[in-house]
Amino acid sequence: MRPIIFLSDLGVRDEFVGVCHAVIETRAPGAKVIDLSHGVPPQDVGTGAVLLADAAPFLPADSVVLGIVDPGSGSERKAVAVTTVSGMLLVGPDNGLLSMAWNVLGGIASAVEITASEVLLSPVSKVFQGRDVFAPAVAHVARGGDPVALGPALDPATLVTAHLNEPDVEHGLIKGEVFDVDRFGNVRLNVRMSHVEAADLAAAGELEAVSPAGSVKAIRVDTYREIPEGAVGLLVDAWGWLSLARFATEAASALDVGPGDMVWLKPLE
Amino acid sequence: MRPIIFLSDLGVRDEFVGVCHAVIETRAPGAKVIDLSHGVPPQDVGTGAVLLADAAPFLPADSVVLGIVDPGSGSERKAVAVTTVSGMLLVGPDNGLLSMAWNVLGGIASAVEITASEVLLSPVSKVFQGRDVFAPAVAHVARGGDPVALGPALDPATLVTAHLNEPDVEHGLIKGEVFDVDRFGNVRLNVRMSHVEAADLAAAGELEAVSPAGSVKAIRVDTYREIPEGAVGLLVDAWGWLSLARFATEAASALDVGPGDMVWLKPLE
Amino acid sequence: MRPIIFLSDLGVRDEFVGVCHAVIETRAPGAKVIDLSHGVPPQDVGTGAVLLADAAPFLPADSVVLGIVDPGSGSERKAVAVTTVSGMLLVGPDNGLLSMAWNVLGGIASAVEITASEVLLSPVSKVFQGRDVFAPAVAHVARGGDPVALGPALDPATLVTAHLNEPDVEHGLIKGEVFDVDRFGNVRLNVRMSHVEAADLAAAGELEAVSPAGSVKAIRVDTYREIPEGAVGLLVDAWGWLSLARFATEAASALDVGPGDMVWLKPLE
Repeated sequence: MRPIIFLSDLGVRDEFVGVCHAVIETRAPGAKVIDLSHGVPPQDVGTGAVLLADAAPFLPADSVVLGIVDPGSGSERKAVAVTTVSGMLLVGPDNGLLSMAWNVLGGIASAVEITASEVLLSPVSKVFQGRDVFAPAVAHVARGGDPVALGPALDPATLVTAHLNEPDVEHGLIKGEVFDVDRFGNVRLNVRMSHVEAADLAAAGELEAVSPAGSVKAIRVDTYREIPEGAVGLLVDAWGWLSLARFATEAASALDVGPGDMVWLKPLE
Repeated sequence: MRPIIFLSDLGVRDEFVGVCHAVIETRAPGAKVIDLSHGVPPQDVGTGAVLLADAAPFLPADSVVLGIVDPGSGSERKAVAVTTVSGMLLVGPDNGLLSMAWNVLGGIASAVEITASEVLLSPVSKVFQGRDVFAPAVAHVARGGDPVALGPALDPATLVTAHLNEPDVEHGLIKGEVFDVDRFGNVRLNVRMSHVEAADLAAAGELEAVSPAGSVKAIRVDTYREIPEGAVGLLVDAWGWLSLARFATEAASALDVGPGDMVWLKPLE
Repeated sequence: MRPIIFLSDLGVRDEFVGVCHAVIETRAPGAKVIDLSHGVPPQDVGTGAVLLADAAPFLPADSVVLGIVDPGSGSERKAVAVTTVSGMLLVGPDNGLLSMAWNVLGGIASAVEITASEVLLSPVSKVFQGRDVFAPAVAHVARGGDPVALGPALDPATLVTAHLNEPDVEHGLIKGEVFDVDRFGNVRLNVRMSHVEAADLAAAGELEAVSPAGSVKAIRVDTYREIPEGAVGLLVDAWGWLSLARFATEAASALDVGPGDMVWLKPLE
């Protein structure tokens, strides 16, 4: 039995996630389902795609990924199952959600559209295909079924892909943006150390971080603990993203920034 | 080992749900427990009952359901285990929480009161019987124990039942109400397509939805994607309820309605 | 395979918890992981320690506990694995989080520092050692590995311990404080019945509860249901703590108190 990794924007308040688990258990009794996160911002395919790609190296190699961030449920968008070169299977809507992960996992080996009526629940709801299409599809594969039984082959080149905005980098200036704020109020930027090096800012122990709300000094640190009380730190988070943080309090609310806000990094004047 | 389906209003912040899982694992090592939802509004037995009934057709046929929405914990209300005609077992307080589900599952085959001291934890807390009464009872049954060992038989006719308010339907008018607002801000009404047909409104592509906060045009659609930007859609959700929705934003906050608010549906003038 | 009990302040919005689950599944396929709670207030080691100690008697005797409330991740604080006299294994940062639990579980039989590079992920992130240090360590033990393989032995006397503030008790007066407010708005005090008895207040059916926001009459009850509408009740919760509660509404918001606020209990005048 292959482990199932479940990522969605469905939240944990409602029964959406639990019903998918129940359908999987019905079709693949004893299957192991790991909830990666159900806190992707509602209908935010891009953030979901980044989260899944970041997590991909830490998933069991034979995982079946169930990804549901699906604002187009019931529309013309396809339901797909993508086998990666690394051997993982990614199941979800063809809207880019899975695309950054398959890049991390060596690219696409093969892909099918999920249409097989003998796999799907009946009837299929137009508004929640997680329950009726995606959950039974992953159950089929988790219990050893061949993905080709899910439906006709797709040309990988036709699949929708998602992209994270890249920061603009010039000498002494990185024009980035916030792409997530986590549970602790840490502000995750779309900036990696490679951008800092490209901007010739790697040696600076302090930088200026400019946002729509103002400007702060950001002290380069390796751990949260090193950030002096009241100060803002800039560190590389566990996924390689630069992150603005404070110790024992929220950086996001203190800096008055949220997802989509621009943050520029430049030398402290 | 029978799968356990766990529904409650206990939330996921505190340790209440986790401790029930731990008690189940202690008494029935290796048991599979699926969290259907722990986001039932606090002490809202009616909403919990609807949620469980909606989910029932999607649960494994041999499920043991653990339902905890229990404002009367420690009072005279009984702790019960109900075997349905379909063969599922429903465990929880005798306050109506389980009653809509057993109706969906063919009715009651037999019922017992949970009193067996050799099954319960000792001592039994008066304020959280989920841990001390219900969790060990489902563990007993999940690992193959006979429900009759839980305590004395009950006359099914004596069990408490819950009922959802039915909308008032007349020609050209449905007087319904909001019974839930989900994670996405979709407004679930206590109205089904049968009511729309009874009101002779099934052919209308647009309706007027009147709430305490005002009146909006609601466009009949099949999917969220079809709702024009800025407009309000009216669709049948994945459980058969009519729901007011907007695309990529929350209908509930835009319409200024919440659970219990009346919503009338009538022809657009 | 030993069951893993996972407690943290990581929340359920982000991928932190899910990635730890994925690492455990990779290293110990099929391991059972029970989420005790991930809602410990961010970086609040003391509240996490109390929660874990309260839950300890309800955990399977052979549990491997994974505790992550770790504001000092990547700093000099040690990563430790503590075997209790009762036979449980507690894994987490050496900051006191695990200490109240090992007291409940008979004390420490042995302890090691987690350093073994063949167990840890590589590289080890400085900012999220839950994923790279603690998760693989519990996976090692859950699948039968010996804790001594995790790293060098530690003198138990050198481990950091946490303590809950004790209330000041005198005749007719208990000077306590709020240490948690739960999902239902119940106000948990650092007061147990032993303090009430020591203050000679055990016989009083009603007490006065004084907080920074004012003073209310608190009626001694055994269950939530007994609290008259509009009144405030004082009851012993499922873990033995005195708790201020109201029926079907939140006591905390009505009383305008939160964690850390003082609450004095004294005879009603």
